[in-house]
Amino acid sequence: MQVWKDYLETNKDRFLDELLELLRIPSVSADSKYKEDVARCAEAVKQHMLAAGCDMAEVCPTKGHPIVYGEKIVDPKLPTVLVYGHYDVQPADPLELWTSGPFEPVIKDGKIYARGACDDKGQMFMHIKAFEVMAKTNTLACNVKMMIEGEEEVGSDNLGKFLEANVEKLKADIVLISDTSMISMENPSIESGLRGLAYMEVEVTGPNRDLHSGVYGGAVANPINQLCKMIASLHDENNHITIPGFYDKVLELKAEERNDLNKAPFDLDEYKKELNVSDVWGELGYTTLERTGTRPTLDVNGIWGGYTGEGAKTVLPSKAYAKISMRLVPNQISTEISNLFSDHFKKIAPAGITVKVTPHHGGEPVVTPTDSPAYQAAAKAIKATFGKDPIPTRGGGSIPIVALFESVLGLKTVLLGFGLDNDNIHSPNEKYDVFNYYKGIETIPFFHKYFAESEAK
Amino acid sequence: MQVWKDYLETNKDRFLDELLELLRIPSVSADSKYKEDVARCAEAVKQHMLAAGCDMAEVCPTKGHPIVYGEKIVDPKLPTVLVYGHYDVQPADPLELWTSGPFEPVIKDGKIYARGACDDKGQMFMHIKAFEVMAKTNTLACNVKMMIEGEEEVGSDNLGKFLEANVEKLKADIVLISDTSMISMENPSIESGLRGLAYMEVEVTGPNRDLHSGVYGGAVANPINQLCKMIASLHDENNHITIPGFYDKVLELKAEERNDLNKAPFDLDEYKKELNVSDVWGELGYTTLERTGTRPTLDVNGIWGGYTGEGAKTVLPSKAYAKISMRLVPNQISTEISNLFSDHFKKIAPAGITVKVTPHHGGEPVVTPTDSPAYQAAAKAIKATFGKDPIPTRGGGSIPIVALFESVLGLKTVLLGFGLDNDNIHSPNEKYDVFNYYKGIETIPFFHKYFAESEAK
Repeated sequence: MQVWKDYLETNKDRFLDELLELLRIPSVSADSKYKEDVARCAEAVKQHMLAAGCDMAEVCPTKGHPIVYGEKIVDPKLPTVLVYGHYDVQPADPLELWTSGPFEPVIKDGKIYARGACDDKGQMFMHIKAFEVMAKTNTLACNVKMMIEGEEEVGSDNLGKFLEANVEKLKADIVLISDTSMISMENPSIESGLRGLAYMEVEVTGPNRDLHSGVYGGAVANPINQLCKMIASLHDENNHITIPGFYDKVLELKAEERNDLNKAPFDLDEYKKELNVSDVWGELGYTTLERTGTRPTLDVNGIWGGYTGEGAKTVLPSKAYAKISMRLVPNQISTEISNLFSDHFKKIAPAGITVKVTPHHGGEPVVTPTDSPAYQAAAKAIKATFGKDPIPTRGGGSIPIVALFESVLGLKTVLLGFGLDNDNIHSPNEKYDVFNYYKGIETIPFFHKYFAESEAK
Repeated sequence: MQVWKDYLETNKDRFLDELLELLRIPSVSADSKYKEDVARCAEAVKQHMLAAGCDMAEVCPTKGHPIVYGEKIVDPKLPTVLVYGHYDVQPADPLELWTSGPFEPVIKDGKIYARGACDDKGQMFMHIKAFEVMAKTNTLACNVKMMIEGEEEVGSDNLGKFLEANVEKLKADIVLISDTSMISMENPSIESGLRGLAYMEVEVTGPNRDLHSGVYGGAVANPINQLCKMIASLHDENNHITIPGFYDKVLELKAEERNDLNKAPFDLDEYKKELNVSDVWGELGYTTLERTGTRPTLDVNGIWGGYTGEGAKTVLPSKAYAKISMRLVPNQISTEISNLFSDHFKKIAPAGITVKVTPHHGGEPVVTPTDSPAYQAAAKAIKATFGKDPIPTRGGGSIPIVALFESVLGLKTVLLGFGLDNDNIHSPNEKYDVFNYYKGIETIPFFHKYFAESEAK
């Protein structure tokens, strides 16, 4: 569609500037000190929706951070695409590892460096800009609804209620999300599944106060040593997870599915080299692609306790803490796994130790059938702009809300992500390639077009 | 000695006020931001030595924090007591657990609450005040030399060199230290041994950067999980330490010695209740008193890695850290144990993980013979003021310098401590009983008297 190409070409500098402006807002949802910035970011997203051509747009308050909603109804008879994305970002620390300020975006070697550049401001904003391209050239093939939330990085606690309260308003034919990644620009891919999540915080208490490790050492259970022991026991010698019942509902892949999945281009040596590790690690009997895409995992995301300052302090601390998350696969259920973890972790506490377990948030695993019309429309859109068929993959990350779209709104989701695995999302020096940003804006209108055509049949 | 009693009675309020003043100086040696305060504290100690009656006193610079030295030579033919103590204190964090400011001493229910109240400002200052009592009443039975350092809590790195450079100046007949505790005021005791120390810091690295735990989780060794596993493996199912060679030089106690040691009054139920733990923990086959006094231990004093802030962050971190210390018993050697730990810890790192081990500081274990004249003089001094014979115990803590006094100066040490195990040293709400403070000032002159008498024989 030449008209789209021309509009993008004419406006590309502005499209980039507007994204950089959005990236300057530190919309960190996990840390309450950024509350004002998160609100400011929501307002900015609303203004962009209106400027791009929405009939209406609004900032909808929730008990937490607000949801921005905007829409353009071209014709009630046309199919409707519901775009979902999020304007909140992960905390930026450790700050000292960033080579430029996380909220002072810079472009180096064709890459935009900033917290949220890829996850998800960069990818979310592609949809607003692609919508502008279609709206301003009068080529909207579908009605468009956009719902951009501010709590994705903290578990989307209030989105479920918003969905339930707005079933009619959010009526659509498909959900479209760009919050995932491709194998590479040479090997475009579409994620056909996502892992779920159960995220727990544990507090382990030994003696009722910090003690001198000389006076009491060797006579009282040390909560750090015991926490380490408990965590270590969560994997066996084959790196299977030892929580009773953990694997009970895991859907084992068929030999054919495993075969297909392992056809994706993957260079183990390159992978190791890129991470600077002497070897990969994981569950015995599975390849790296299977481990990240189709198997459940358990990782400690944070641990702390005792003296962590400069020098040496001979303390035997009263408490130790860890944040532990599990990635889930079909048909595991987040709340069930949280309960299994909680029961097990309390049970393995030795005498002299008490344990408190607090679930943070969770989400269900999802799979999008590759033979659905929506998936096929996405595949055709990729073909139109990349010149080749996309490879279906399984993503390791979680977008908990995808399962809710199906259960509350009855909608399937297409994951049309343009990120790359080395975009450092959730890490220092997050980046997003300018090429990918424009490629996304170019591809999205084709999805609307092909999806409308498939629905018209 | 009525003259001592009278002097103490007349001056007791001032003696207490002067200690409180000293406790207001945050002389935290581990944290460089308190450097000026540490220096200020050294100067205050020097002024107190002069005011108490020293012929001379000086602040001796070192590469780290200064050492304060003062002396009063009554008659070169008299025996000389070398008093050792330290004016530096442990860091005060976690601050939020203090019920009053760590450097704003308050007296509640007859107890002085402040960082350093017991360890070691309160106990060290008893010697300056006891010296004042003897000096001002012209009853000094021995020459007195006082060496008060500012780096005890960070390993006394520069004291060894100071000893070596001042062998002549420090010539004495015995070293007297109050930096340990008694069983109780009803059961006075003297520590006849101390554990040694080897303190290590470990850094465990997995991937070269923080990763998204969804994208990489389950495929890359997580440094926190692996650090936990490595730490957990350092104890076996009987809570023995698994480092090869760790126990090789440990002197097992004779049945009789174990028997004597276990005669000390000890109420296991009270001990558990006081710490609020359902059970004690330790090496199989040993009692709690044996575990803390005569057996080597390994405790994690601090651990950190990944996201430890508010909320949830799904990071698979690049690095995790721990501070790990081992208490040693005769005849383990600190540097040997440090090397054994280091070699072993590197060896148990799994593929995909690299390990860096940094030793912090160490000290050798010591034993003071209970049949020596100096120990006997201390026992008689206790008898004079408490009305009963002290029980010999083994302390779990470490005063690394005690081994150096023997090797460099050829001097034995008497550990005449007046602290209590519940003084919360190294913990929030450290305290020292006013009663114990005065009891120490009352008892110390008797040690000088009886020691002089035993030397005169």
